[in-house]
Amino acid sequence: MIELRFDPKKGIWAEKEDADRLRNNSFGEQKGDKLWLTPEEALYVVDLQNGQVRYGKKSLGFSDLLAEFARKEPRLMVKYNAYRDWRDRGLIIKRSFGSSKGNKRASHVKKYPAKEMKMPKAGARLVWDRTSAMGVIEDPEVSGRLFSDWWLGQVGVYKQERGSILKLNFFETVLLAEHFGLKVLDAETGKTITAKKIMDGVAEKREFAKTMYQAYEDWRLNGYIVKTGFKFGTHFRIYFPGASPTKGGSGDKWVHSKHVLHVFPKEEKLLISEWARAVRVAHGVKKTFILGMPKLTRKDYVDYPADFVAYRRKKVGKDWIRETPKDGARYLLAAVSEEEHIGGQELASLLKKAELMNLNLILSITDRETAITYYALNKINLKGAKYDYYEIEWMRP
Amino acid sequence: MIELRFDPKKGIWAEKEDADRLRNNSFGEQKGDKLWLTPEEALYVVDLQNGQVRYGKKSLGFSDLLAEFARKEPRLMVKYNAYRDWRDRGLIIKRSFGSSKGNKRASHVKKYPAKEMKMPKAGARLVWDRTSAMGVIEDPEVSGRLFSDWWLGQVGVYKQERGSILKLNFFETVLLAEHFGLKVLDAETGKTITAKKIMDGVAEKREFAKTMYQAYEDWRLNGYIVKTGFKFGTHFRIYFPGASPTKGGSGDKWVHSKHVLHVFPKEEKLLISEWARAVRVAHGVKKTFILGMPKLTRKDYVDYPADFVAYRRKKVGKDWIRETPKDGARYLLAAVSEEEHIGGQELASLLKKAELMNLNLILSITDRETAITYYALNKINLKGAKYDYYEIEWMRP
Repeated sequence: MIELRFDPKKGIWAEKEDADRLRNNSFGEQKGDKLWLTPEEALYVVDLQNGQVRYGKKSLGFSDLLAEFARKEPRLMVKYNAYRDWRDRGLIIKRSFGSSKGNKRASHVKKYPAKEMKMPKAGARLVWDRTSAMGVIEDPEVSGRLFSDWWLGQVGVYKQERGSILKLNFFETVLLAEHFGLKVLDAETGKTITAKKIMDGVAEKREFAKTMYQAYEDWRLNGYIVKTGFKFGTHFRIYFPGASPTKGGSGDKWVHSKHVLHVFPKEEKLLISEWARAVRVAHGVKKTFILGMPKLTRKDYVDYPADFVAYRRKKVGKDWIRETPKDGARYLLAAVSEEEHIGGQELASLLKKAELMNLNLILSITDRETAITYYALNKINLKGAKYDYYEIEWMRP
Repeated sequence: MIELRFDPKKGIWAEKEDADRLRNNSFGEQKGDKLWLTPEEALYVVDLQNGQVRYGKKSLGFSDLLAEFARKEPRLMVKYNAYRDWRDRGLIIKRSFGSSKGNKRASHVKKYPAKEMKMPKAGARLVWDRTSAMGVIEDPEVSGRLFSDWWLGQVGVYKQERGSILKLNFFETVLLAEHFGLKVLDAETGKTITAKKIMDGVAEKREFAKTMYQAYEDWRLNGYIVKTGFKFGTHFRIYFPGASPTKGGSGDKWVHSKHVLHVFPKEEKLLISEWARAVRVAHGVKKTFILGMPKLTRKDYVDYPADFVAYRRKKVGKDWIRETPKDGARYLLAAVSEEEHIGGQELASLLKKAELMNLNLILSITDRETAITYYALNKINLKGAKYDYYEIEWMRP
């Protein structure tokens, strides 16, 4: 049994042997002869460490404490649950006070290769069906080359060798018109249309079309093949430079993409559950999930709560032992719930905060039955990219 | 070679032997001595049936035709692509003119069992943390009973036998407060709070909370266990009446849910790709996807284009042969693209239209590289439900 004492004006603390036991287990903060606990630490001790709370002559239970603390502490059960789960894995987690500095290993930045896209002028006419956001090139020589050499568009029928018409989507059409001299005829007006006008037309109906295109262009101009990620529930799937629909990596087998790319505009707000759904599909098909976000300017940053710094394990001799505050933290941990929202701007701000603290960012998502899912975000280094990119990994601490 | 003739004032047609060949293959509509084709039929004949088009002395290609037709026919490439894919599977598909009547088999309505939820009064106090949208019951007798007998909330730690505190989410809290006499204490104010106030508080931050609750209640009051579907990327997972977290179906094994439930409010508009993502996760984990939607009133109905009626195969003797318009259609097929939007109201209107035509609804989704994914929607019969429910099945025609 561990005894805690509570006073609504002062807080909650332990004394003497109880304080020693808790301190040795990295709970609380010592001031004078008392070890002061945060609300989630106190709730944890009561819920799972056989703690008892005395308030004058009364004894308080978990729900009494919750009723006391939740008055001043927003989102307490969400934070408590994140805290509980990390602790339950035998690991240490502490409130973040913004000043903690981590021990981040440089290896967390992933370097992606880049190869400039050097393509001759397209030199053909494309007929653009605005209301379908799809265009057609009929010239068989140009169609064949765009498709075989650059995997732009789709000749004939997907994964079949039938038909010779090349169908291009709006990303491909804009890319070719903008960078490779493609002439586009607007079917509705019968006149030539510019890359900008095509994009403006799509953006009227499809929110965030320009942001999506920017990410598409970042990867395409770096030599990557970027196709729809529809079958994987994401915006794009990505093949590394050199892939083609006809020439496989080994032999003549179909090349499978290993990465999917999802774009998160800074103006967009998503339910955490929707955000997680996108990552989950990619994980289910064993692909690396890449999140793309516009770079923020100073005025874009917002203060989104990142509640905890978290520690993991280190190898000492042959054993893995848990790290303590002396080792420096590894992670900045943001506790969120399934039903809350996160915006592109907020996520980018969290990532920036983690970077400044020398920590990796983890989202700890508590679902409606208090199970936790963790996602770690690692920065990608892609040469000359206009946006920021992160690998998002499902993790088990 | 099939010869077609085009006149911008009249349309596109075939004559003589060419008309006979096309008519026998269920293309076009005969008027006098000409067989008139719809734009997508003409594009298909040119793209994949070796068709040639004469316009006076000129010869027109696929992209010329597209440029001619797209002027008056919105979303032509999306429709063409849906048409092409169904035809490519050796099956017949025709424009829907609203009056076609189908041959729908009654078996498409799925009946789900129902068992009234008869629970004694909860008789305990719950402390409600509004900003976490989560509450806590400490009374071990009540906690244990709610969890074991009704699988309401989560005792201690998910899938572990530790801790005794019951945590309830807002659906569960509202259900118990509304129907089973649970007393709820608002931690922030220290006062009792009603089911309605709890719901109103959640609805301020969580869009569509009331719509979600309604679906939750429909299934719960019919005896189903309804838990979060977070791990499967949907709103809820569902267990049939009788399931519990401790008593498995056979022996003492963990019961796996076989159904997930997603709620589509009529005011919500989703990108088709986002809508499909939700269905896709469920399919990936081999669960039946159930879509829940509020019932529409007369004024809610909108005219969302359902472009085609589609035919499949029938068994004649030992062979499966394709059905023709003489057999009556099976499906109302709506052609949409990855980048378009669909609202709850629009989908419900489509479902109503299909029902009135005696057809099953299929969404044919064309992705950015013209591959097609099909989803069929079958109505669910759930006793006394306030909403409409549909099973959504990925299908391959």
